[in-house]
Amino acid sequence: MSRIVHVAAAQVGPVERESPRAEVLDRLIALLTEGAARGADVVVFPELALTPFFPRWFLEGDELESFYEDEVPGPSTKPLFEEARRLGVGVSLGYAERDGAHHYNTQVLVGKDGQVVAKYRKVHLPGHEEHEPWRPFQHLERRYFERGDGFHVSRAFGGVVGMAICNDRRWPETYRVLSLQGAELILIGYNTPIHYAPDPGQDRLAGFHNNLVMAAGAYQNGCWVVGVAKAGIEGGVPGLAESQIIAPSGEVVAKTVTEGDEVIVAACDLDLCDNYRKTLFDFDRYRLPEHYGLITSQRGVVPPPEAS
Amino acid sequence: MSRIVHVAAAQVGPVERESPRAEVLDRLIALLTEGAARGADVVVFPELALTPFFPRWFLEGDELESFYEDEVPGPSTKPLFEEARRLGVGVSLGYAERDGAHHYNTQVLVGKDGQVVAKYRKVHLPGHEEHEPWRPFQHLERRYFERGDGFHVSRAFGGVVGMAICNDRRWPETYRVLSLQGAELILIGYNTPIHYAPDPGQDRLAGFHNNLVMAAGAYQNGCWVVGVAKAGIEGGVPGLAESQIIAPSGEVVAKTVTEGDEVIVAACDLDLCDNYRKTLFDFDRYRLPEHYGLITSQRGVVPPPEAS
Repeated sequence: MSRIVHVAAAQVGPVERESPRAEVLDRLIALLTEGAARGADVVVFPELALTPFFPRWFLEGDELESFYEDEVPGPSTKPLFEEARRLGVGVSLGYAERDGAHHYNTQVLVGKDGQVVAKYRKVHLPGHEEHEPWRPFQHLERRYFERGDGFHVSRAFGGVVGMAICNDRRWPETYRVLSLQGAELILIGYNTPIHYAPDPGQDRLAGFHNNLVMAAGAYQNGCWVVGVAKAGIEGGVPGLAESQIIAPSGEVVAKTVTEGDEVIVAACDLDLCDNYRKTLFDFDRYRLPEHYGLITSQRGVVPPPEAS
Repeated sequence: MSRIVHVAAAQVGPVERESPRAEVLDRLIALLTEGAARGADVVVFPELALTPFFPRWFLEGDELESFYEDEVPGPSTKPLFEEARRLGVGVSLGYAERDGAHHYNTQVLVGKDGQVVAKYRKVHLPGHEEHEPWRPFQHLERRYFERGDGFHVSRAFGGVVGMAICNDRRWPETYRVLSLQGAELILIGYNTPIHYAPDPGQDRLAGFHNNLVMAAGAYQNGCWVVGVAKAGIEGGVPGLAESQIIAPSGEVVAKTVTEGDEVIVAACDLDLCDNYRKTLFDFDRYRLPEHYGLITSQRGVVPPPEAS
């Protein structure tokens, strides 16, 4: 089995509040088709690819519920997955999941045969729980979603694949927990508003930080990282584009150049992971968990006592 | 008390095998003097600043022992610390420490009053234990040093300061364990051979990786990071320069441009840490140690079972 996985990052431009699901699905199918034509083994779509990033609005009732899917692949997404299976291409897709009374920010991984390989429910939910009218727009992920049960990996496409979503990528623990399970390819969808209301001084750095955390995650764990944006001005709110595929060296090997629907493809040689995992980052030889205790024993900062 | 700490990174060019300690000390005093003249509150010297990076040679007996210090400040380093005290400047200095029969790769932090604030003994010792003649040069840190007892912080210069040494900076756990203790300023000395014998494909990336890990460590923990090189061609082996001071945003605010003795100074406003620590990286609100268990329960990679 070849260790080269051809990965397509299918960046999706704005999805407006009133966009019919079928219209969005047509766009995703067009991206899928292009990815397949360019040789992709798997096409990766962003977080909440089927809908606008609705946590930016304070919503209740039917409109809020209309953004969730009860089943994926399911009635409204079937044409995408059927086409993927016909083309022999895997799919990773982010969507809002409803499981009975529970709601998650979810990413599914489907194999070339159309079978679900894994489902990941976002762990690091950023933003806030209550309506905060002082903000120019909301970030209510902590109101609309419950947290998933953690980071897991799966064998797929000849390697070990992990998933993470948006804010997860800013936490080094995400990559580490996945790489300790052998992840060689980490698929990350994101919606990143460029404006960060709690500290607008960070706005000008949105693209820099996006690359920094994913490149460091790739290098420090010797794995491929695929970051895929829902990009552009959606609902009047500018969202970061800059989808990228990053090698275990930390180098960007492919990057989008628009803020709309755009496919980039890279041949990801999973054997390159060993360049780092069997040398500098040979965890068995060099990691020292006995000195990392605070990472799991303590949640917040505990500073030393003030000088008396 | 002001929350701005003026930090000087005092990069040191090559120290040759036959260089008398007193000659090296004169160079360090010249760097200290320049740092003080440029307003530094603390001058940070690199790892093993008093000697060549002797783990590159397979050594035994008297020559090996000649590279260690029994006491710092001590007889051979007294003039540096006396001058620092006279100038009212703190010092962080890397050196090879002998404590009876024990040997460590150590960095000391001395306050403006000449008192030792903290001593850090390197935890992540890279390289190898035995002579490996196939290498163009050795990296025998695991032969010449024992591991320290972990990462600690101290109150100094109006803030919370942590130290790490060289290879420590490549591990995200280093910064995290320090920031969980409140570190706002992390001082890191390094000797980084540009040639990495186990995978020479990494050589061209030495500078990129150096910045990547320290910038990610700064941003993901909302702290200042000061990286100081022993730089240039020492003992015939090219060492990375590129000393730099990095803000909590991950941005480089000062960087050396030579491979020799060179001072850079930056005004590090420790209050900038809160821009990240009280927003996106509010650990109390957003960290989820219950999902990070593998980081401390497991040392190496445990991949999922092979498909049957």
